[in-house]
This record gives sequence, structure tokens and C-alpha cells, in this order.
Amino acid sequence: MDKQQLIDCHERIKPFIHNTPVLTSHLMDEMAGAQLFFKCENFQRMGAFKMRGAANAIMQLTEGQKRNGVVTHSSGNFAQALSLAAQSLGVKAHIVMPKNAPQVKKDAVRGYGGIIVECEPTLQAREHESKQIEEKYGATFIHPSNDDAVILGQGTAGKELLELHPDLDYVITPVGGGGLIAGTALAVAYFGKNCKTIGGEPFEVDDAYRSLLSGTIEGNTTINTTADGLKTQLGDRNFPIIQKHVERIIRVTEEEIVSAMRLIWERLKIVCEPSSAVALAAILREKEAFKNQKLGVIISGGNVDLDHLPFQKNF
Amino acid sequence: MDKQQLIDCHERIKPFIHNTPVLTSHLMDEMAGAQLFFKCENFQRMGAFKMRGAANAIMQLTEGQKRNGVVTHSSGNFAQALSLAAQSLGVKAHIVMPKNAPQVKKDAVRGYGGIIVECEPTLQAREHESKQIEEKYGATFIHPSNDDAVILGQGTAGKELLELHPDLDYVITPVGGGGLIAGTALAVAYFGKNCKTIGGEPFEVDDAYRSLLSGTIEGNTTINTTADGLKTQLGDRNFPIIQKHVERIIRVTEEEIVSAMRLIWERLKIVCEPSSAVALAAILREKEAFKNQKLGVIISGGNVDLDHLPFQKNF
Repeated sequence: MDKQQLIDCHERIKPFIHNTPVLTSHLMDEMAGAQLFFKCENFQRMGAFKMRGAANAIMQLTEGQKRNGVVTHSSGNFAQALSLAAQSLGVKAHIVMPKNAPQVKKDAVRGYGGIIVECEPTLQAREHESKQIEEKYGATFIHPSNDDAVILGQGTAGKELLELHPDLDYVITPVGGGGLIAGTALAVAYFGKNCKTIGGEPFEVDDAYRSLLSGTIEGNTTINTTADGLKTQLGDRNFPIIQKHVERIIRVTEEEIVSAMRLIWERLKIVCEPSSAVALAAILREKEAFKNQKLGVIISGGNVDLDHLPFQKNF
Repeated sequence: MDKQQLIDCHERIKPFIHNTPVLTSHLMDEMAGAQLFFKCENFQRMGAFKMRGAANAIMQLTEGQKRNGVVTHSSGNFAQALSLAAQSLGVKAHIVMPKNAPQVKKDAVRGYGGIIVECEPTLQAREHESKQIEEKYGATFIHPSNDDAVILGQGTAGKELLELHPDLDYVITPVGGGGLIAGTALAVAYFGKNCKTIGGEPFEVDDAYRSLLSGTIEGNTTINTTADGLKTQLGDRNFPIIQKHVERIIRVTEEEIVSAMRLIWERLKIVCEPSSAVALAAILREKEAFKNQKLGVIISGGNVDLDHLPFQKNF
């Protein structure tokens, strides 16, 4: 995927996404010993960067494919993103969700016009159900992170950030399925000046960290993290990009994630997901490495359950 | 206070304040049946619009007055605002706070360089202590809301909002001590086109509502509201402006405040104080009156205790 493809992708999806604001804070800068530029994808449509990739993936389909609709399996932000992007483009979106997904997530998908298909809460059941829908309707399966069009779409957040601040030294993103960091790494390679991409990842789900070490895609044996958006694993489309363009991945503890999340809420006055706080946690963990540098930070999303916040005493 | 004074005030304080962003949300617009433009003073320095008035009040002092410092009594945002504005301008700020003020508020004031003077938690003790400091140091007392320079400063938020969206039909603010709504009403009168100012106020502290009815400044017998920034009452400097320029005040219940606050957090993805939510609560309570209108909403501040949120189940 070359520079021109990323430019074309951005032009294509512009009518369907927000160019989200970039926030700064003197107090945060002092605390980090660096200059931080927070790209607020929590203000993106449906509340996360996933809207970008979903819109691009649907827009790349043929008219015939669009008529038959799209399908994905997700209980997270991509379910909402595909639903809203499909609705905006007049396309049907089938969303395979586990029966036990929280009602609030099902309501959100339905609110954006997605057609929910419930299944047993196993990966096998999700994949089986998706296949059924592909066969029944001729719907196109769109993967939340391991898809070239999705990766390019996610990269447009980094592109916007670098257009506003071309002299960033690093862009730091959380790492889950790998779509955001791969897309960002492409944007940094094409639009940065001596800029590097770094990932933040919970110790509890450090598949990307281990994958970069071993040179092959590793899985997670446990997924015991509050950063619930980062439980997924890398794929064969995004891993090569990450290998080529990401400098390194910094792992953080659960305590560091919660404390970084609280800082973002208290100091930036914005609502972000635990997953988003992983990037800031990585910076604060390795302050010396980033001293006096200009750091772009992707705040990936803001869809949280306000009744269950990790820093609440009674949680 | 004429138009030119408001323009001069804005130019004067610009180096010390942020021109805060204005956020919009399709979902919020649908819910309200109107177009909403949220002026995010929660992103202001120290987290609230109060920075504007504090900066202007100090900058209006003579050099001699500045040398002797300033004093106020407040346990809320104005304590932080005066401290930070004074620090930015190289002036000493004495802050009289009740002994029992939360530690987090004392820490914030000290963090901004304010000198805390503790007193008994009564209005008499606060006023007595302030007087002592005025006499001892020759410090100038600056009232949080009943001061012309403060009122003008607070008006610059509305001025910025109207510069960005000149065709607003209404600007709605919360009403506490009256500084914000009086300043906003001046900005609306000078920079709006057929635009009107409306206040939102909790039923529990509806002194402004009753004052407008009776034509004289009324007090509150109880202050049992979650909107803790709105417990103060109007004064003789801001009341005449409110009488002349504010169309009306809409009262809201505690439930409406908490539910509007939750909406702002969930939909706009920003952290705001309960007091800030009163303006949105007023709009949602009287939807029919605002149908299809363009509404500016001042989100007054974002300093909340994340351990005690009013919509938390265990609060």
C-alpha cells in the first residue's frame, strides 16, 4: 500500500468522518517531560477511529457487493463502526455478536442500523455464523483489523495528525488487532520527517511484542486486561507492515493503564477508553527515552460504560 | 460596560487564555430537535471559564496594586483561577478557604501558586479573614462574580462562540453567582444577531429565577444541589445586566442535571461538571421552545472528583 493509496483513501472517506481535534496540555507536558499532541479519535463518529477503516472498506466494494451487504463478527467498536458506515452508504451490515454481549453494545449497533445475529460466545460459533451469512446473502466479510482497506482507513488519523504537526518525533498508538498501528506506521512512513511509530500494549496481552521478537504471529494465552479493545491478535495483512515500520512496542501494567486513563480524564477533560490510555502509559513508563521530544498520541476511542470505570473505588 | 470594553478585555486576556473549541454532535442535535454548539470551557486553563474573569481583573489593577497582591474567598474554581492568573502575571494571590475544603481543591490552588489561608467554614469567617489580608498586605479583594472586570472577562467565552457561529438564536449558560450569564448576555447583546441569552438554574438554588420575578436580589434558603458551582447568589453588579439582557431562566430538577451530565460524557466524550450540565438540562426540559433553533451552550467547567460522580450507582 503506497503513499498515493493512503491519500486516495483519505479523500474517499472524508465526507463520512470527522477530522478530529488535537488537544495539548501544559500540565501533561510537564508530567511527561515532552510535548504531547493528543489526536482525539474518541470524538470520531461512533466514538472511535474504527469508523475510518469501516468506511474505506465498504467504499472499496463493487456496486454488486454493496447490494449484497457486509458482515463482520465483533462485539466492540468495529461492530458499531461497520453499522454506521454501512448506514451512511446505504448498505446492509450484518453483525455477528455473542449472545452474552452487553445490552448497551447491542443497542448501539442497532441504533446505527446494524442487523444483529446472535451466536454462542466462542470464536468457532462466530466464524461459522459469519460464513452462513456470507453464503445466504452473498455478503462480503470485513475483518476489523486484518484487511488492507481497513488498515489504510485507520492510517488517515495519523495522516491528519502529521498534516497539523509535521515535525513530530514519534507517534504512539495502542496495539490490539494491529489495524491502527499498521495504518499509522504507513502514515508516519509517508508523511513524517524522521518520525517513528511506537506501540503501547498491556503486559497481559503482549502478543504483538512477542510477535516482533519471534518474527511470527503469536497468540495470547490470557486476556486479563482492562483494555478490552486490545484483546484481539495480529493478522497476516498487518503484521508485515508492523515488522517493517514500527520501531518497538512498550508493554505496560494494568495499574499504569488505569492511572494514565485517569490522567487523561482529569487533565485533558475528555472521556477515553482504557485501551486509549495504553499509549500514554507507555510514554510515562519510558519517560527518559522520550525526553523533550514531540509525541503524537492517538486517543483511539471513548466508548466506555460509565457505570463501570476502572478507577472507581467501588468497581 | 460597552462593546469596546468587551473587545479591549478580550485582546488584553488573549495571551493568558485558550480560545476553547466548539463541539457538535448529530446525536445530541437529534435528541434536542435543535442544533447545539457546545463551547468547551472545561478545556480552558485550570478547567473552567473563571480563568477569563480572573485574568482580566488582575490585569486591570495598577502596578502598585499588583505589587500588593490579590485576595479572594472561594473553595471552588475561582480560587484556582485567581491563583493561576496571578501566577501567570507575577502577582501574589491569597485564597481564603474553609478548613474543611476538600484536600484535592487545596492541592489544586497550591499547584497554581495560590497562598491558602484557612478559616472556619462560615461566610462571616471568610469575609473577616479576607479583610485581614486586605489590611495586612494592602491586597486587592476580587469577587468571584460580582465585579465588572470579572463579568467582562467571563463574557469573552460568548464572544468567541459568536465569532465562530454568528447566527446563533440563543446562548444558554448555567447561573450561579451571575458573572458568567451577565458577561455572556453582554457578548450576545453586542455580537449576536437577534440572539438571546437564557439561563439554566437548579430548582434547589433558584435565586436568580426568583430575583428576576421579584425585581430584587433574592437569596437561597437551601443549597441542596449536585451542581455545586451554582450555590452562590447574584450581586448588585451583575443583577442589573441580567435584568436588562437575559430573556429568562429555566429551572431544572436534580435528576435532569445528572441525566444531562451523563449525556454530555457519553455523547460528546468530554468531562464536565454537574453545573455545566444545567444548561443542556434546561434545553431538554423545554425542547418545544427551542425546536430547530441554533443554540450555543456554555460548558462552564470540567473539574470533578472522579471518585464521586453523581451518576455512579454506588455514589
